[in-house]
Amino acid sequence: MSALGQRRWVIAAGRIPPGSDGPEPEYTSRDELSILNSGEGRADVELMIFYSDRDPVGPYEFEVAARRVRNVRVNDLIDPEAPPMGCDYAIVIEASQPVVVQQVRLDSRRAEDSIFSTIAYPASG
Amino acid sequence: MSALGQRRWVIAAGRIPPGSDGPEPEYTSRDELSILNSGEGRADVELMIFYSDRDPVGPYEFEVAARRVRNVRVNDLIDPEAPPMGCDYAIVIEASQPVVVQQVRLDSRRAEDSIFSTIAYPASG
Amino acid sequence: MSALGQRRWVIAAGRIPPGSDGPEPEYTSRDELSILNSGEGRADVELMIFYSDRDPVGPYEFEVAARRVRNVRVNDLIDPEAPPMGCDYAIVIEASQPVVVQQVRLDSRRAEDSIFSTIAYPASG
Amino acid sequence: MSALGQRRWVIAAGRIPPGSDGPEPEYTSRDELSILNSGEGRADVELMIFYSDRDPVGPYEFEVAARRVRNVRVNDLIDPEAPPMGCDYAIVIEASQPVVVQQVRLDSRRAEDSIFSTIAYPASG
Repeated sequence: MSALGQRRWVIAAGRIPPGSDGPEPEYTSRDELSILNSGEGRADVELMIFYSDRDPVGPYEFEVAARRVRNVRVNDLIDPEAPPMGCDYAIVIEASQPVVVQQVRLDSRRAEDSIFSTIAYPASG
Repeated sequence: MSALGQRRWVIAAGRIPPGSDGPEPEYTSRDELSILNSGEGRADVELMIFYSDRDPVGPYEFEVAARRVRNVRVNDLIDPEAPPMGCDYAIVIEASQPVVVQQVRLDSRRAEDSIFSTIAYPASG
Repeated sequence: MSALGQRRWVIAAGRIPPGSDGPEPEYTSRDELSILNSGEGRADVELMIFYSDRDPVGPYEFEVAARRVRNVRVNDLIDPEAPPMGCDYAIVIEASQPVVVQQVRLDSRRAEDSIFSTIAYPASG
Repeated sequence: MSALGQRRWVIAAGRIPPGSDGPEPEYTSRDELSILNSGEGRADVELMIFYSDRDPVGPYEFEVAARRVRNVRVNDLIDPEAPPMGCDYAIVIEASQPVVVQQVRLDSRRAEDSIFSTIAYPASG
């Protein structure tokens, strides 16, 4: 199967809810990117994180192996810097070959946890 | 009416929540694909499921009759293999004619169930 | 301002949750279409509702006035037929001029109500 | 990095939930636009708000600085007019250079708060 999707994606509404209720790591509040590499070659991925009040931080670099999906919790990023919790950000995702990106947020700060997901914006520009 | 949509769709953030709270099957935690075939002919559909740590599994094959919508719970797929619960996956959907695909997740592990839905990514590649 | 959007939209994952918890009509479980007509002329809209086990029903006809948004609860449609509750359906929306369509579901069957929304699929086909 | 996205976006399903449960401003019910300007120049943004029963109101004007994301709570808009709570509206977003727009709704009227998010509709028309 060919590498489906696009090489550049954008999440405008990023946020790690500050606090969790329930057993870790299953119920840890998180902001997560699911990245599918359906192609036959490895995808090298770079994230740039944009903030409201300071310059963008990055690149955060990782790989998605051929024919694999990789779920990256923004909470777990540490190099070059751990993104702060409870802070609005946006993410630009660039990959060395086409991938598909979907965002999932779990907010478990109150026992009545809430989840949302949306396909990221595929930016050709 | 013509067959609306596209022949190939992608869900990057798949997951069957491991556990349910409430009467079955109404409140069963699930990951579901809603597939509309608005055309006059039958659509033959194949799913490939991609994982984070092993090769893709499939094809899962089924039909969507002419001018019908079909809701497929990923939980109910068994051939060639039942997808494990609590495990991240992605799905590539290919149909023999244009369809429209939307994902719905119900997470009822805690009584305060949460639901999300997003239109899948229509991949032309 | 010109009429933004497209003339044809699709919702694949439609469903009216069968039951509600909380004061009406604010907390009535519902499946809703928000339709924006940003243009200078009236938009005549037709909905066709597709089911899993019988022929499509429609058209359901209504207008969206110039420069207005209209929120249509699927629960309130009655002519030619009230859609059943707790039943999966898909909707094809056709308008006489470009509009933008977004789906909102409120499931209030349990006090811990859940809401989701997604932009509909803009079908050019 | 270039300015990713598009200059015109549409939200069809806008609404500020009338009431909140929990400490302000973290749990204030809200309808929010996250706008990323990934480019090197300032983006001047104008919002027009469309209603179901009266003429559109606007423009609401603000800036998004170069390489910044800005989260605008519709609740906080006041000039030319504060949008009413509990009222359906749609928003057309126009920017002087490409941006990416995502909607987030938090409904905290009942302690079991619910959140949703969807990428806005990128309108080329």
